[in-house]
Amino acid sequence: MKTKVGIIMGSDSDLPVMKDAAKILEKFDISYEITVVSAHRTPDRVSEYAESAEERGIDVIVAGAGGAAHLPGMTASHTSLPVIGVPIKTSKLNGVDSLYSIVQMPGGVPVATVGINGAKNAGLLAIQMLGINNQKLRDKFMKYKAELAQSVKKTARELENLGYQDYLDKQS
Amino acid sequence: MKTKVGIIMGSDSDLPVMKDAAKILEKFDISYEITVVSAHRTPDRVSEYAESAEERGIDVIVAGAGGAAHLPGMTASHTSLPVIGVPIKTSKLNGVDSLYSIVQMPGGVPVATVGINGAKNAGLLAIQMLGINNQKLRDKFMKYKAELAQSVKKTARELENLGYQDYLDKQS
Amino acid sequence: MKTKVGIIMGSDSDLPVMKDAAKILEKFDISYEITVVSAHRTPDRVSEYAESAEERGIDVIVAGAGGAAHLPGMTASHTSLPVIGVPIKTSKLNGVDSLYSIVQMPGGVPVATVGINGAKNAGLLAIQMLGINNQKLRDKFMKYKAELAQSVKKTARELENLGYQDYLDKQS
Amino acid sequence: MKTKVGIIMGSDSDLPVMKDAAKILEKFDISYEITVVSAHRTPDRVSEYAESAEERGIDVIVAGAGGAAHLPGMTASHTSLPVIGVPIKTSKLNGVDSLYSIVQMPGGVPVATVGINGAKNAGLLAIQMLGINNQKLRDKFMKYKAELAQSVKKTARELENLGYQDYLDKQS
Amino acid sequence: MKTKVGIIMGSDSDLPVMKDAAKILEKFDISYEITVVSAHRTPDRVSEYAESAEERGIDVIVAGAGGAAHLPGMTASHTSLPVIGVPIKTSKLNGVDSLYSIVQMPGGVPVATVGINGAKNAGLLAIQMLGINNQKLRDKFMKYKAELAQSVKKTARELENLGYQDYLDKQS
Amino acid sequence: MKTKVGIIMGSDSDLPVMKDAAKILEKFDISYEITVVSAHRTPDRVSEYAESAEERGIDVIVAGAGGAAHLPGMTASHTSLPVIGVPIKTSKLNGVDSLYSIVQMPGGVPVATVGINGAKNAGLLAIQMLGINNQKLRDKFMKYKAELAQSVKKTARELENLGYQDYLDKQS
Amino acid sequence: MKTKVGIIMGSDSDLPVMKDAAKILEKFDISYEITVVSAHRTPDRVSEYAESAEERGIDVIVAGAGGAAHLPGMTASHTSLPVIGVPIKTSKLNGVDSLYSIVQMPGGVPVATVGINGAKNAGLLAIQMLGINNQKLRDKFMKYKAELAQSVKKTARELENLGYQDYLDKQS
Amino acid sequence: MKTKVGIIMGSDSDLPVMKDAAKILEKFDISYEITVVSAHRTPDRVSEYAESAEERGIDVIVAGAGGAAHLPGMTASHTSLPVIGVPIKTSKLNGVDSLYSIVQMPGGVPVATVGINGAKNAGLLAIQMLGINNQKLRDKFMKYKAELAQSVKKTARELENLGYQDYLDKQS
Repeated sequence: MKTKVGIIMGSDSDLPVMKDAAKILEKFDISYEITVVSAHRTPDRVSEYAESAEERGIDVIVAGAGGAAHLPGMTASHTSLPVIGVPIKTSKLNGVDSLYSIVQMPGGVPVATVGINGAKNAGLLAIQMLGINNQKLRDKFMKYKAELAQSVKKTARELENLGYQDYLDKQS
Repeated sequence: MKTKVGIIMGSDSDLPVMKDAAKILEKFDISYEITVVSAHRTPDRVSEYAESAEERGIDVIVAGAGGAAHLPGMTASHTSLPVIGVPIKTSKLNGVDSLYSIVQMPGGVPVATVGINGAKNAGLLAIQMLGINNQKLRDKFMKYKAELAQSVKKTARELENLGYQDYLDKQS
Repeated sequence: MKTKVGIIMGSDSDLPVMKDAAKILEKFDISYEITVVSAHRTPDRVSEYAESAEERGIDVIVAGAGGAAHLPGMTASHTSLPVIGVPIKTSKLNGVDSLYSIVQMPGGVPVATVGINGAKNAGLLAIQMLGINNQKLRDKFMKYKAELAQSVKKTARELENLGYQDYLDKQS
Repeated sequence: MKTKVGIIMGSDSDLPVMKDAAKILEKFDISYEITVVSAHRTPDRVSEYAESAEERGIDVIVAGAGGAAHLPGMTASHTSLPVIGVPIKTSKLNGVDSLYSIVQMPGGVPVATVGINGAKNAGLLAIQMLGINNQKLRDKFMKYKAELAQSVKKTARELENLGYQDYLDKQS
Repeated sequence: MKTKVGIIMGSDSDLPVMKDAAKILEKFDISYEITVVSAHRTPDRVSEYAESAEERGIDVIVAGAGGAAHLPGMTASHTSLPVIGVPIKTSKLNGVDSLYSIVQMPGGVPVATVGINGAKNAGLLAIQMLGINNQKLRDKFMKYKAELAQSVKKTARELENLGYQDYLDKQS
Repeated sequence: MKTKVGIIMGSDSDLPVMKDAAKILEKFDISYEITVVSAHRTPDRVSEYAESAEERGIDVIVAGAGGAAHLPGMTASHTSLPVIGVPIKTSKLNGVDSLYSIVQMPGGVPVATVGINGAKNAGLLAIQMLGINNQKLRDKFMKYKAELAQSVKKTARELENLGYQDYLDKQS
Repeated sequence: MKTKVGIIMGSDSDLPVMKDAAKILEKFDISYEITVVSAHRTPDRVSEYAESAEERGIDVIVAGAGGAAHLPGMTASHTSLPVIGVPIKTSKLNGVDSLYSIVQMPGGVPVATVGINGAKNAGLLAIQMLGINNQKLRDKFMKYKAELAQSVKKTARELENLGYQDYLDKQS
Repeated sequence: MKTKVGIIMGSDSDLPVMKDAAKILEKFDISYEITVVSAHRTPDRVSEYAESAEERGIDVIVAGAGGAAHLPGMTASHTSLPVIGVPIKTSKLNGVDSLYSIVQMPGGVPVATVGINGAKNAGLLAIQMLGINNQKLRDKFMKYKAELAQSVKKTARELENLGYQDYLDKQS
């Protein structure tokens, strides 16, 4: 199966967050590749990766980075593919720096930004994009949403039945 | 031509910003619809709009809102289509409230967030998503990027030739 | 006794905070119901819950949520009952995102917002609202305030008598 | 008719904002009183006002203040009535100072906080509180919500029919 | 010896911070009193404390509080004595809420604000104020400053001599 | 009369704010001197000014600065006199930079910080400090506070009598 | 004379700020070049510019950008020359986004960041760097600092002589 | 070998961060001195250190400080050498206070600011400055950058080969 989604990150220290994008893609049987590309330490690798992605059959790129997070924006500057940016939480500014560095792109070069550490949602957004011309995938996404709803309802019933004290006791 | 993109906003006071999404779609000959849907004043309209969008042939929804900006997220909760959120600048908190309300979505329900007042980029992101299965559109987007680059280079040459003083004088 | 207050939250991970609303209602012998309603995962459940609350005899709704916290505002959009919003502290933005998403509502749809993680105060605010036409409850609230004052005065005397060193030693 | 709502503010410079609370109460035929009470310049007036409010028949207090905004919280400390706080936008910190000073109350003394400059919503929240035991008022509030929805729908139709360009031209 | 400084705080949970004010006063042999006064739970105690302080011979009041920190400002509203405010760090907004609530006072009612958790500096500021008419105390303060400088210079020499690695090894 | 208060500022662009400190001192017949001392452009002038202030009979120093506002803190490092810091509003960060640079002083070197642009309150705080050993000045301050209260009460009565509409009409 | 400093900016809209870098270099007779290089619209131009700068004899690069400001960091990634970053004030987030995007660089790729809109200081910093091996330039810089000090002292004397009222009157 | 770089910090509690500047200088065989200089506790030491640095042969000063961080700016005010500022993370405001206090310098007195706790980058920036007239050092820096890139590429290959799960397992 053709690789559809490229997942990149600025450093392997972002992997514990970014793996959630890979996991959700696996759940939806979407083929992906995952690697490290540093905007600042390997700038040429950014352009090579981004410019060759389309030829390699990649349809969407998910890019995570923290601090002065330039990877998603620089990737977007080198490709016509949609780029999803994941601001990684930082120990100093909690990821507000990452968020501002990713979302405040100038006119002409968008990055589809998700929440801080929102790698799972980045994967889901990639799936939604791929679903635009793939009814089967769209149905699968709808089913996934229905399961989320079921899970919330199950939790709700349990809390309603047990009351908050027993519910909390049971969890701990 | 089938309508591909739905542009919605929380209030007509958002229109001077949100029209930029429509304009860029026109430039790329993408058919769109544009209307007002208030998450808080017309909550049922949100679910109706979002749930019927797919049937009406819409592939991507662009939603702009300000303050406690719930429209993009609530739209996303009612559809499997990708939703692009535009945080509108507010007079009080400058749009940080809008940004946080749109981007910090919980796992399972992503919103592809662009910069504050970034409606043009929202339109371009929609085009990139539509381009996933449309090589012609992708080529057009690449051409658009090339034109942006040309325009920067022209500006650069002019500034280099004139020097900053004459360049500024000429502009004013 | 008729259920007066509905306590809802976006996820059961909010329960360790939100249980404080239930606890204070119990102390005042106000009947309540408590459950999970996710604005984003179960949007229809929000409208159902909010629209049926009045018929079920609920007078006040207390809604807690974190991040892009839409539950209080969306609940308010579906009912004429007063809605009290509790911004839940988040691991990334400390609850500033929750606070802005809840308090910055547009004209026409207020949410009575309390402090971050202020579930106990949300419960007390509900009691104050119910006390508008219930002198007995109002008296009880006044007594509660008097007890708080007594407790502060007791602490004060103890600190004054012991001095800070012995007071701290005794606590640890 | 008995005065139901007391509207107070820290300075007459807050009046251009706070008058919106009075206006919406007038629209709902709720009797109110309006005056200036400075937490810092007239601290005794705060306790007098708050402690006598209940006897005077006031059911809800709406208090607006800016900067180190202590009026809502200090009023709440002197009464068992629900107090609604309106953070006034400031020229220096845009009202973030007002918001934090009002919403972050300690356990035991809640203030029902609305958005920055949200005096109209403060009035509506007071109406919702009064509606808890007043079905007629509640129905009126529902009608008001329905009118808001109608107004959004009318705007939406007009924008849909005219397109964004003609709609904007017509407005200017 | 007459009590010169009154140290108050909103809750005994502030004591581990506020005791630093007492400690530094002890070091300078300044007599003080220390107690708990809650602006919100014991509002009348604030006015009683502040209004009687002058008669009791208090010259400066040091007041610490967190969150919607009204104690320093409300104390200042009830006295002509200088009031020093200590913003206490909070678990949610890190003390930015406390800082804004204390420092942004309206014209006419100043609070001399020190840094977040800066109780020691509050004590030193009280000493500086008392030193205005007390040359002996001023000399003592100058000596204290000289000792601080000596201590820094000693640290500096040690680091210069050992180098960073041995210096750090020695500390751990 | 001996000069009691030294007012300094980092630049003459701060004068429109800082003159309010002078004005209020004049109102209380406190002799002052006023000048410009730049921490960064004339660092030696800071030490000279601060170290000679005491000899010249100055009892309190009021220092205003904006941005990376080092003047108040550096002045405090060179004197045992109390230093009051006025954070000047900046066009870029609204004075949050000034506030943090002034208030967050390390242990041992306090600056008594007032609100952003709070030069009037800085003057009043100086007066309160001088009043510690000057009952006449303290009485004058109490009278000033009483006048403030009267003025608020007059405003209140006027608003109560006229109603908000006539009151606002009369002002404009 | 060899060109020593390269001044680049993300857009010609940054020129009214960035020209201050050029002006101060002219004052010090340092040869410079100035042009527009967009990190996002002309990414290849960034690498070409940065990689060829050293050969062209450039010793320091000054780069200004706003929003998700990637130009300084991306330039630094492509050269061993020191890069000075100027965060441009933005209409939405006031330049906090620009500042965080420029200053929070990962280990290995520093950007020497100056204040928001601090282009003049960027030029002066370039001069200081060039002065490391150029005693004449260093002397010139010292003279410049002395002139700044003189100018402050002249202002100070004028304010001292005139008093604040006449000084302000004369300016207006 | 002549000492080229002076590393100073406000307190020895900054040493665990600031030692990274020394370490990277050692790696590049650049001679340095390291000591403690407190802007507030030893203000005269700041001027002495800064004014004598040039004579001692120092070419660049690296200064770290936290909170109201005046050391870098005050050092810059006393020398014509370039000063690199390192904002130290604080327990209260996470280093935003340090960052603003260091970067927002007035025109005429620049500080080359690096990221919060960015001492390693401060060292590298010093090396880049020294490299302006030292081709050998510049080559060494280029080699360092190449090694960083190699290290990223090695990490990337490993992640690509192992997949995220095995890669993470191997690390833990």
